[in-house]
Amino acid sequence: MTILAFAGALRAGSFNRKLLAVAVEALRGQADIDLLDLRDVPMPPYDGDIEANQGLPEGARKFKERIAAADGLLICSPEYNHSIPGTLKNVIDWASRPPGNPFKGKVALLMGASPGPYGAVRGVLALRQVLTALGVLILPASVQIIRSGEAFDASGKLVDPKNAAQVEKTCAELLLVTRLMRD
Amino acid sequence: MTILAFAGALRAGSFNRKLLAVAVEALRGQADIDLLDLRDVPMPPYDGDIEANQGLPEGARKFKERIAAADGLLICSPEYNHSIPGTLKNVIDWASRPPGNPFKGKVALLMGASPGPYGAVRGVLALRQVLTALGVLILPASVQIIRSGEAFDASGKLVDPKNAAQVEKTCAELLLVTRLMRD
Amino acid sequence: MTILAFAGALRAGSFNRKLLAVAVEALRGQADIDLLDLRDVPMPPYDGDIEANQGLPEGARKFKERIAAADGLLICSPEYNHSIPGTLKNVIDWASRPPGNPFKGKVALLMGASPGPYGAVRGVLALRQVLTALGVLILPASVQIIRSGEAFDASGKLVDPKNAAQVEKTCAELLLVTRLMRD
Amino acid sequence: MTILAFAGALRAGSFNRKLLAVAVEALRGQADIDLLDLRDVPMPPYDGDIEANQGLPEGARKFKERIAAADGLLICSPEYNHSIPGTLKNVIDWASRPPGNPFKGKVALLMGASPGPYGAVRGVLALRQVLTALGVLILPASVQIIRSGEAFDASGKLVDPKNAAQVEKTCAELLLVTRLMRD
Repeated sequence: MTILAFAGALRAGSFNRKLLAVAVEALRGQADIDLLDLRDVPMPPYDGDIEANQGLPEGARKFKERIAAADGLLICSPEYNHSIPGTLKNVIDWASRPPGNPFKGKVALLMGASPGPYGAVRGVLALRQVLTALGVLILPASVQIIRSGEAFDASGKLVDPKNAAQVEKTCAELLLVTRLMRD
Repeated sequence: MTILAFAGALRAGSFNRKLLAVAVEALRGQADIDLLDLRDVPMPPYDGDIEANQGLPEGARKFKERIAAADGLLICSPEYNHSIPGTLKNVIDWASRPPGNPFKGKVALLMGASPGPYGAVRGVLALRQVLTALGVLILPASVQIIRSGEAFDASGKLVDPKNAAQVEKTCAELLLVTRLMRD
Repeated sequence: MTILAFAGALRAGSFNRKLLAVAVEALRGQADIDLLDLRDVPMPPYDGDIEANQGLPEGARKFKERIAAADGLLICSPEYNHSIPGTLKNVIDWASRPPGNPFKGKVALLMGASPGPYGAVRGVLALRQVLTALGVLILPASVQIIRSGEAFDASGKLVDPKNAAQVEKTCAELLLVTRLMRD
Repeated sequence: MTILAFAGALRAGSFNRKLLAVAVEALRGQADIDLLDLRDVPMPPYDGDIEANQGLPEGARKFKERIAAADGLLICSPEYNHSIPGTLKNVIDWASRPPGNPFKGKVALLMGASPGPYGAVRGVLALRQVLTALGVLILPASVQIIRSGEAFDASGKLVDPKNAAQVEKTCAELLLVTRLMRD
């Protein structure tokens, strides 16, 4: 069983990369983890003329392959302007282009960390809407990290034990549901 | 009074460019129209490290200037995967970065054309959420064009007179509210 | 395995009752169907003082019991004012009150019929948000019936074979996922 | 100029009544305030058969009249299950029924207080969607009170001066925009 795990931000020091690392640790040993850095699958902003004339960019093709090869998805994303980051929406838009819809039938767990008082609750909602459109079975539980600048200690661990427990619990659910849906 | 008008898609033959042209015709002579092609303000997918190291891309700076110089906004956008196109969200994300928030206090009219049976109703909803976050006063009425492939005639006019009337009516509202808010 | 099936409208002639009947037919023989009429579990508009002074109304207690006894949920709801009907939201609000959350861990399939050109697509989105909050695993696929006044024939069958096929397909998914999650 | 002000909860001790009182104080002397208690306009859960057979309930008719007589709306609402309370959606659903749409053209300011860490941010979003459908011009700024149980002092004042300042600022905007749109 393979879980594709990626953060929705490109910034090297992104809090969502940190959150992803915590979650990947919780999954370790229980599934194959394909840890993806969106920097490794670069794509321009979606443009239908690029698609018509040149086909999908190499980054988009690779991203699609890695989604297709996975059974489950773990996405940690910030919220920009009360919604999904354009950067994340863009890679999803490219990956949704034919041939095939690699998202269909996958199970997903969503997490979000943002520096503000409401964290990424609206961004995660927006991401649910997008992945639902693509046929993803999204776990209702999520991990929400507010005030992300103070949420991690120097070693990258979550300071609040409730947050750490929620990561453990939801990762266990991701493994369980992905396994059930795969068999 | 200046209305900045742009389509949320990059494709040259985009139905939303056609819709924008119809709307701009309805506005003509009643306000200065700044017709923007997002291709003229190119930006990479948002990356906080690019911003930190190089500042805003030139396209983003220009986009911000044109928003700042406008009193009202007219945006025609398709819907991708039940939400705002990543390409459009990305330029908004860049434009929301400091210094300043050029969107604040602008009045906006949103339109959406998409080929499916529901048009862009979910995409326009998602765009409302984003622009609300940025302090835009968004008109409640919108123009929704479903089955966009059959909605325009060869000369670019809207086939359905109800759609044409809705463009006229909402453009008049944009002019009215923008004028009231500006004075 | 038990599927609790109900329509989100109270009106006897509701199109969503018709849609529910079509879906229940598709499920018949493959699961126990608990067909609920919201008229049989009457509740006043939620009021925290009623709850504090008198506890849950009898209708709410019965509704909670029937949810708790089910493995899966099938909900057919109209859209009112671009969102979930207040009547449906109200029974969900009451049912979410302690003790216990009967929705947690259930699998749900959502359908929506409304007379307008966009059917209930925004209403179903709003209902997803609510049931996600309550821990329901919602199938990404849904059934959307636009222009519901012309969608059913005199015998109550769906006129458009694509709609009928979508009911069959999604009901099969509900049975499959509910069975997997139950074991 | 009249502002109709009401809380979206029925409970006598509701935090949103407290928030409403703070906001009404900020508006006092600058507009006529029509302070409405939803308990004074009781309505059953919406049922199309009641409407067809008996017309609108008296509470709904009175609620429509008070909306119609106002120029602006101030609504303070809690969030239930990540969305608009069923009780509030229900009165809006009834008020949206013919004859006429009393909401059309009104200006609204939305506030939300809820005990959780995210307050009512998702509930206010859901309420925006509903009022937009009804033609209300909603101010982009809102007041959001998280952890409402600790947000008010014994005299009913907001403890955090930032919250108090946001009430003052947004109420001034409501007055300004309502006045502009009215003239």
